Parts: sequence; C-alpha cells; structure tokens
Amino acid sequence: MSTTPVTVTVTGAAGKIAYSLLFRLASGLVFGPDTPVRLRLLDIPSAVVAAEGVAMEIEDCALPLVAGIDITDDPVAAFDGANAAFLVGAKPRGKGMERADLLTANGAIFRDQGRAINEHAADDVRVVVVGNPANTNAYIAHRHAPDVPAGRFTALMRLDHNRALSQLATRLGAPVAELDGVVVWGNHSATQFPDVSYLTRAGRPVTAGLDHEWLVDTFIPRVAGRGAEIISVRGSSSAASAAGAAVDQMRDWVFGTPGDSWTTVALPSEGQYGTVPGVVTGLPCRSRGGDWEVVDGLELDEFQRARIDASVAELVEERDAVRGLGLID
Amino acid sequence: MSTTPVTVTVTGAAGKIAYSLLFRLASGLVFGPDTPVRLRLLDIPSAVVAAEGVAMEIEDCALPLVAGIDITDDPVAAFDGANAAFLVGAKPRGKGMERADLLTANGAIFRDQGRAINEHAADDVRVVVVGNPANTNAYIAHRHAPDVPAGRFTALMRLDHNRALSQLATRLGAPVAELDGVVVWGNHSATQFPDVSYLTRAGRPVTAGLDHEWLVDTFIPRVAGRGAEIISVRGSSSAASAAGAAVDQMRDWVFGTPGDSWTTVALPSEGQYGTVPGVVTGLPCRSRGGDWEVVDGLELDEFQRARIDASVAELVEERDAVRGLGLID
Repeated sequence: MSTTPVTVTVTGAAGKIAYSLLFRLASGLVFGPDTPVRLRLLDIPSAVVAAEGVAMEIEDCALPLVAGIDITDDPVAAFDGANAAFLVGAKPRGKGMERADLLTANGAIFRDQGRAINEHAADDVRVVVVGNPANTNAYIAHRHAPDVPAGRFTALMRLDHNRALSQLATRLGAPVAELDGVVVWGNHSATQFPDVSYLTRAGRPVTAGLDHEWLVDTFIPRVAGRGAEIISVRGSSSAASAAGAAVDQMRDWVFGTPGDSWTTVALPSEGQYGTVPGVVTGLPCRSRGGDWEVVDGLELDEFQRARIDASVAELVEERDAVRGLGLID
Repeated sequence: MSTTPVTVTVTGAAGKIAYSLLFRLASGLVFGPDTPVRLRLLDIPSAVVAAEGVAMEIEDCALPLVAGIDITDDPVAAFDGANAAFLVGAKPRGKGMERADLLTANGAIFRDQGRAINEHAADDVRVVVVGNPANTNAYIAHRHAPDVPAGRFTALMRLDHNRALSQLATRLGAPVAELDGVVVWGNHSATQFPDVSYLTRAGRPVTAGLDHEWLVDTFIPRVAGRGAEIISVRGSSSAASAAGAAVDQMRDWVFGTPGDSWTTVALPSEGQYGTVPGVVTGLPCRSRGGDWEVVDGLELDEFQRARIDASVAELVEERDAVRGLGLID
C-alpha cells in the first residue's frame, strides 16, 4: 500500500450526491485499492452536524483505505493540501428565485472556494464541479484561482455522456463497453448537444439505426432532459448516477482513459472547435499522463455547428451575467 | 470477462439501503471486476415505479458489468435463478405497532421469499438478510426453504462487526486493517454482544487499553446503540454503512476471508458455543471454498457465557413468537 494518502475534499458533504460519492471514494473506486484517502468534508454551518453523521457512517465501514476524516465549514481548512476536490454543494434554485439571485448565491460560494483552492490546495489539485450551474460555477472558481492551471478545473458532463452512451446501447442493442466516440458539447443544461457523429461500435463507425429524426426528436431531448425524467419516476433527483459519473471522471483523470477511447469533460476552452476561450465547455477529451487533452481534428457539419454555437452562447450569457454581478473581473 | 452473469436479487429495491447497495453491485465491488451482474429489483407494488427510477439511474451509469435489470413485485420472478439475494426490504415498526404485528407483517414477507428461493433460486444461492428483525427474518426464510442448505441463509451482523472494529481502532489508535479476532455474538439488536476477548493487533493479542469497565459501560452499548446514534446525528438511518457491510459479507462469502482472519456472520446455529440449534445467531466465521465455517475451539468465560446466553434467549423468544403466530411449524 502506498504510504502517502490522497487528500480529497468533498463539498456539500451532508447532501445526497456526497452520500453516494464518499463511500465509493473510501472504498478505493477512484484512487485505486492501494492508495489511502484522507477525506475533507465541507458543508455550510447548519449542515456540519449531519456531515458528522456521514463521517460516523464512513468510520462504521471499517475501510482500511480511510486515513482520516475532517469535517469543517471553512473552505480554507477544507482545501488545505487537497489533491482532489469534488465541488458538489451549490445553492439550488428555490421557488420564485430569479436567475440573478441564483448566480449571486453560487457565485459567492465558488469564488471563495476558488480562492481557497488557489491559496491552499496541493500543486496537483484536480477539481470536478458537480453543483449546478456546473460549468459556470467551475468558471467562477477557475477565475479566482489564477495560480492553478486552467485544465485543473472541470465541470461534470460525464453524467450526460454516460446517459448518452446508455441510450445508444439500448437503441443499438449493443453492450455499452463496445461504444465509443460520443461527446456532449457545450453546457450541462437543456442546450447541451449529445453528438453521435463519431460513434463507433467495436471500433467501426455506426451508421444504421440512428436516423436524424430520432436523434433530434428523441435522443437529444431525452439525454438533456434525463434529470427531470429521473425526478418524475423516482421521486428524487439523480444522486447515485451523478456520483458514479464523478467517480468515472476523476478515475480516468488520474489513471487515463483506456486505449484511444475518449469521454466528455467540461473544461476551460482554448477556443477549440469554435468555442469561446475561457468558458468551461463540454469537449471530447482523452486523459494522458494525468491531464485532459482535447481530441483534435474532428470535422463539424452545419447541424453540429449550430447546436454547439447555441450551447456555447448560453455559457457566454452566464459568464456575462456573472461578470455583470461583479463576481469576476 | 466471464461470460456467465451472476443473478443478484435485491428486495426493498426502492429503499435507501438498496440505493446505496445496487450501484456498488453494478460496479463490480462484490463479484469482482470481471463478472457481469444481472440485477433483479423486487419491491412492493406501490414502490415499483420508484424502483424503475433507480434502474434508470443504474443504466445512466453506463457500467459495462450490468447484464440486465428486471423490476418486479413478484417474489417468484425476482428469485428465479438467483445466485445471490440481499433481502433488504422489511416492514418498519410504525407508531403504536405491537411487536406481534411487526413479526406477522415481516413473517409473511420472509415466508413467501423463503418459499420462492426454495423453488426458484439457483443451487448456489447465497442469502444475506438485511431487513430487521434480520436474524428472525432470516430464520423464517430458512425454515420455508427446506431444500436449500441452512448455511446459505445468513443475517447481516457485519455492520455490528465493522462498527466494533472501528470503535476499537479509535480506542487503540490502530489502523483498522491491523485488527482481527472480533466477534459479535447473538442477535442484531440491543442484546448483541460485541466481544474483544480474542482481539489481535498485527497478529498479537491486545490486552492494554481495553479495561472491563470501558468495555461494559462504553464499548458494548456504543456498538449496540450505534444505529440510534447515527439517526440522532445524521437525521437519517444508516444506509450506506449497512450497504457497505452487506457488500463486505457477500464478497468475503464468494472470495473467502483473507488469511486466517475471521468475521461475524449470523447463520443457523448448529449449537456451537452453547447456542440454540437452528436459530440464526451471530458467530465467528471464516469463509472457505465458498462456505462459511464457524471458528471452533474458542474458550468462553462466565461474562461471555452470560452475554451470549442473554442474546440467544432473545432469539429463542422471537422464534417462539413467530411459531405462536403460525408463521413456522
């Protein structure tokens, strides 16, 4: 067993997604069966006691990889020495809440967390933002952490990616493990563009079974609207599948994506594929040597161009709104 | 990857413990990274739609090991060909509910499930009962499955075992992985007896730091009362840690306990250590060749004898109550 634990910060630690995530982290599903983890649980003051209850349950699992659990409401303490951070906690949109109120509330949270990461996290920190609006929350944190390489701030679009893969596997009658080449461009929102243009099955391009009408009328809205569908059927929001996607993203980031396969990661764009530099955008990525690399050389047709532009335009609007509220320069 | 999936039935599939358990099963944490799993989700008719929502989330994880998910309210369909069964669903004790009402309600559930397992499960079926009163529920199911070897029916006392290990690790300042030789005798209830008489640390007996007063006044009541403590702190009952213990128990059952170490399993007693034959009792066990073997040759002193007898007496009372209600012969 490695002697140096990985320090992992999870925010919104008393919430439902964290409840699904923390036990998987503690079981070695993310950092491997030989790497101890030191868990840092951050939540707002009113939720700290509940987070202590979660910590008690983690202790009750008697997991050999757990090197320690700290609970705090102070971002500075939470991110001190963090090698990995899952920013799960965010203010949900309440009844009658205006969009500006939501952005203001979350902007302050992610600004402070970005600053704390900048000043106190480990040099190799990897950040996955799960709390919505995830892309813009990641953007705010990134903009307040100028000393951290931009590629270290990501937002979770792996859930959309996994949902797309699952829908395609069902449609094609294919094992999900045989499918590759999916990407979900843009924003983790209703404007997202799950794109099957490069889809392969067992290495060969898939052409049959995915007519344009099905893609536009069924597939894209179903993937983009899956969160609402889960709520309506299960009676509760997606927590375990969101945690599963966060696990997948961090594990691939640390250990690499297998072979030549790619996945979707939202990270600060460098302007690839006509996206807007800086804005945290869903892009096709491989993980190599511990970093995300955007897949290059893909050709876009007019339909793709229009869908990507529409979702990026929404991200630019969110950025401008955050800027207008004085949350970033 | 193995070509033959393991069929795994989880009852109470729409509940909180199943929500923590199913995604770990689907990730390969129990049956290993190369064995596909076919999940069977059983719940009562009013919960079937919510269970479908859980199945949708499992699909949304795009996990390569998931060979299929069926949702049903029919025990016969649920246990057809089952190689493993987690009986999580049970009727909780409502306000003003008498103990006989509780036993009657659960007795009918576990009688029907025992019959379905007897008639329809695979020859190698392994059953872990999580729903309370777990020992007596397992006893009822076992008694209605005369063609299934008794040792295939277990109740979950691994959670108590893990809680004991965790408390001891904290007390001794020891890594939990260094501790062995703990057993929780008797019933998964307030009468349980977490016993440190054979405790070793890194293979050597532990004598210091565990005075009788601490054991009797702090350790035993804390382990036995941990469920209530979690509820009071977290505001919700232990779900993830119960699921974790169920994972541990089934994994060890299939793959064996490591080295000479042992764990606690509640299974139909053969009268070992003066316990009552047939009654499902927490005993020290090793897993060898796919079966639980009760550790033999341990010496008991008067204190242990009295504690074990008290908890077994409670199990006999529960058995007699169930018999009095006509739920078993």
